[in-house]
Amino acid sequence: MNYRIVLKSLGILLICEAVSMLFALIVSLIYKESISAFLYSIGITLFAGLIMFKIKPLSQSIYARDGFVIVGLGWVMVSFFGCLPFYISGTIPVLINSFFESVSGFTTTGASILTEIESLPKGILFWRSFTHWVGGMGVLMLALAILPSVGARTLHIMRAESPGPNPGKLVPRISQTAKILYSIYFSITVIEIILLFIAGLPLYDSFIHAFGTAGTGGFSNRNLSVGAYGNIYVEIIITVFMLIFGANFALYFQILKGNSKSILKNEEFRFYLGVVFFSIAIVTINLTGLFDSIGQSLRYSSFQVASILTTTGYTTADFNQWPILSKMLLLLLMFVGGCAGSTGGAMKNIRILMLFKIIKTEIMKLVHPKAVHPVKIDGKAVDRGTVNGVKVFFITYIFIFVASILIISLDGKDIATTISSVAATIGNIGPGLGEVGATGNYFHMSVLSKLVLSFCMIVGRLEVFPILLLFVPAFWKKVNI
Amino acid sequence: MNYRIVLKSLGILLICEAVSMLFALIVSLIYKESISAFLYSIGITLFAGLIMFKIKPLSQSIYARDGFVIVGLGWVMVSFFGCLPFYISGTIPVLINSFFESVSGFTTTGASILTEIESLPKGILFWRSFTHWVGGMGVLMLALAILPSVGARTLHIMRAESPGPNPGKLVPRISQTAKILYSIYFSITVIEIILLFIAGLPLYDSFIHAFGTAGTGGFSNRNLSVGAYGNIYVEIIITVFMLIFGANFALYFQILKGNSKSILKNEEFRFYLGVVFFSIAIVTINLTGLFDSIGQSLRYSSFQVASILTTTGYTTADFNQWPILSKMLLLLLMFVGGCAGSTGGAMKNIRILMLFKIIKTEIMKLVHPKAVHPVKIDGKAVDRGTVNGVKVFFITYIFIFVASILIISLDGKDIATTISSVAATIGNIGPGLGEVGATGNYFHMSVLSKLVLSFCMIVGRLEVFPILLLFVPAFWKKVNI
Repeated sequence: MNYRIVLKSLGILLICEAVSMLFALIVSLIYKESISAFLYSIGITLFAGLIMFKIKPLSQSIYARDGFVIVGLGWVMVSFFGCLPFYISGTIPVLINSFFESVSGFTTTGASILTEIESLPKGILFWRSFTHWVGGMGVLMLALAILPSVGARTLHIMRAESPGPNPGKLVPRISQTAKILYSIYFSITVIEIILLFIAGLPLYDSFIHAFGTAGTGGFSNRNLSVGAYGNIYVEIIITVFMLIFGANFALYFQILKGNSKSILKNEEFRFYLGVVFFSIAIVTINLTGLFDSIGQSLRYSSFQVASILTTTGYTTADFNQWPILSKMLLLLLMFVGGCAGSTGGAMKNIRILMLFKIIKTEIMKLVHPKAVHPVKIDGKAVDRGTVNGVKVFFITYIFIFVASILIISLDGKDIATTISSVAATIGNIGPGLGEVGATGNYFHMSVLSKLVLSFCMIVGRLEVFPILLLFVPAFWKKVNI
Repeated sequence: MNYRIVLKSLGILLICEAVSMLFALIVSLIYKESISAFLYSIGITLFAGLIMFKIKPLSQSIYARDGFVIVGLGWVMVSFFGCLPFYISGTIPVLINSFFESVSGFTTTGASILTEIESLPKGILFWRSFTHWVGGMGVLMLALAILPSVGARTLHIMRAESPGPNPGKLVPRISQTAKILYSIYFSITVIEIILLFIAGLPLYDSFIHAFGTAGTGGFSNRNLSVGAYGNIYVEIIITVFMLIFGANFALYFQILKGNSKSILKNEEFRFYLGVVFFSIAIVTINLTGLFDSIGQSLRYSSFQVASILTTTGYTTADFNQWPILSKMLLLLLMFVGGCAGSTGGAMKNIRILMLFKIIKTEIMKLVHPKAVHPVKIDGKAVDRGTVNGVKVFFITYIFIFVASILIISLDGKDIATTISSVAATIGNIGPGLGEVGATGNYFHMSVLSKLVLSFCMIVGRLEVFPILLLFVPAFWKKVNI
């Protein structure tokens, strides 16, 4: 382990975070709110960051294990320092709650311990939602994009943080890839802000909801989430943009290069659209008894399906009151999530698609034992390592899910709350069912449960292994300082 | 596909089933009940069996795909003919309910659509429980054991029906292996009958509960299951025997050969005991508030843990009323099940143990990318095909579980009922939570749900693939008559 480069990278990360907080401070200034909490938070974060940044590494090499540690520790650290504005301002006076809210922000989960949001300072709420935007594309991607390359081999950092079974680069240089991705991300976000503003939202609300959509996070500045506006244009815009941010950004890069046909040839994208339309159809039919017209039913079902599938978590209706079929389908979508290379969480469509193909392959092996049966995506055979990785990812995800449920059970909540709270945090969705449903929140969970769910959020965002590795003693042994 | 040998084998199976019904007919005679339902059922089954048995195969070879078809179709057919006594006697006047009860019997699930059991004819209840005993060790194993070898290659039949990731033979000859296994099975069952009788059960009840324990089925002749007796000795005997029948029978063969140390060296057996003691400890502590003493708590927890883990499904308490932690742990145990080569259902301990090792291996690969990391059981590396099989089995099991939940959701039951009904049938346990809990049953499920749950029971008993294959068109194509 190259501890010095790890610490130095983490220092850079904290400096970036301190700079990010400046935006929220500016919002506080605009609304003439107290800025002392932000000044303290920025000071502490910058100070810690600068001390670590001063460390001189003996070697510039970042190997795979260093990448994992930087990403794993980086996310825990960024979440911790990110909670300072909530804690110091007294908005969330209990540290574990501040930490939970901050983890939920950066991991783009959107699970909240707050009940009354509308009376909170605008600067604080801006920071809360801005963490979604920063976390959506990756906190380290941001560092890689805005800073000159910190060392020779930053590929391992990108790989460890990027969502999907086989993340790659768009262009040969990492910092260039990061810049392209952030430019696309930034541009689509700006378009959404403008459209939301035109549709009638206040400018501030447009920013908040565009951040929540872009990062597929789901924090709102309204107690009733997007449902508070009752504005169908706003709902349509957010639905469409949630789906846009839930797809692979590499596709938008292809479109920019003039290769717009590639988007429909992409098997994962087609599968993703299939899941969207299938789920909307089922839920719409299932809801017909609940709403006056099929149009109303379609309105609420399409918003909620898009919101849960992309792991955003905005709500326009209390889906906890919906029929069991709709609830179970939404619970299932919590495991599917967005596409690889999107800001969406959970297992990703490509993995679910591959799992279906893996099952089919296994059956075909029994039918024709002597033939070769590769798993193909986009017409090409996927290499064995990736296929195996997808299998083990699924197994590990389910095992962590089950183990977490057992610990959450200690709280003595009902089954729906217990199961869905874990599904909604490890999948980075936010609201679940029961007490943590659309009208509820995570406030009443025990400290242990909040820690476990915070762990689940980071595990989900980093796709399991970078975080699990930190708990393996053998991982820390071979030290090179 | 060698259709002729398939049909002939199925004919033999039906003849064996008709003979099995004779035992129930004798019980009816003893209790001076009407025997007409059994006479009709035996006649129909024997007639169908003889017609198919008359078919002359052109070749005696049974290949892997023939073995799968024989086992897959065999179980569906045996369940169908096995429901005739219930249906013809008018005990269960609706055909789908009779079929459900029969599938539940043969697959040793023990899920019932009956509410009032104690007033039913003793011959019918004997048949209902005897199906557990026959299904526990395998209906085809029975045919292989009591008939002279039907052809050259019956190994594929045994492999397709036997539980566990890598079933093998105890001795070189299949028919000999089947005989040894059935002798052990028969002997332990007889010992349990005697012990239950000594403990104070009527002889008839001793038979019924020994069948239910041996097959890890769970049908009782009392409405309150084993709880009806309130007899602690009976509970202890059944607890111990459930655990005995949930372990690998190959271990008992080793003990008979004088190699009794091997049982403690067996990694799966140690894991199984670990799961038992861990779960009993957790549930006992969790129940202390509910019962007067820790002794009472231990009494009910140990019975219920053993019953659910071994997939038997007997109850001495309404565990649906227990705290959420106990309920979630029992729900989780429904996925673990017995050991490979036992009569227990679900995924089997060896697979869960291997999945843990697979996760550990994957993490170690990240720590030491260049080293070789085999998955070892009992100190020996498991071959890649088996390891891969375990991964795909888990994935497929979970996918079928999830798909079934969605269909069951159409019934509009609560979440606990919906989820646990599928877990309890695909794992061959029987009672779940909510409406299908210890005091409930499956009567109120829709016809579609009963069909899906019947499918789940057979899928669970045959470990997924022999049944899935029947739905693959390509599987039926290459025909050799």
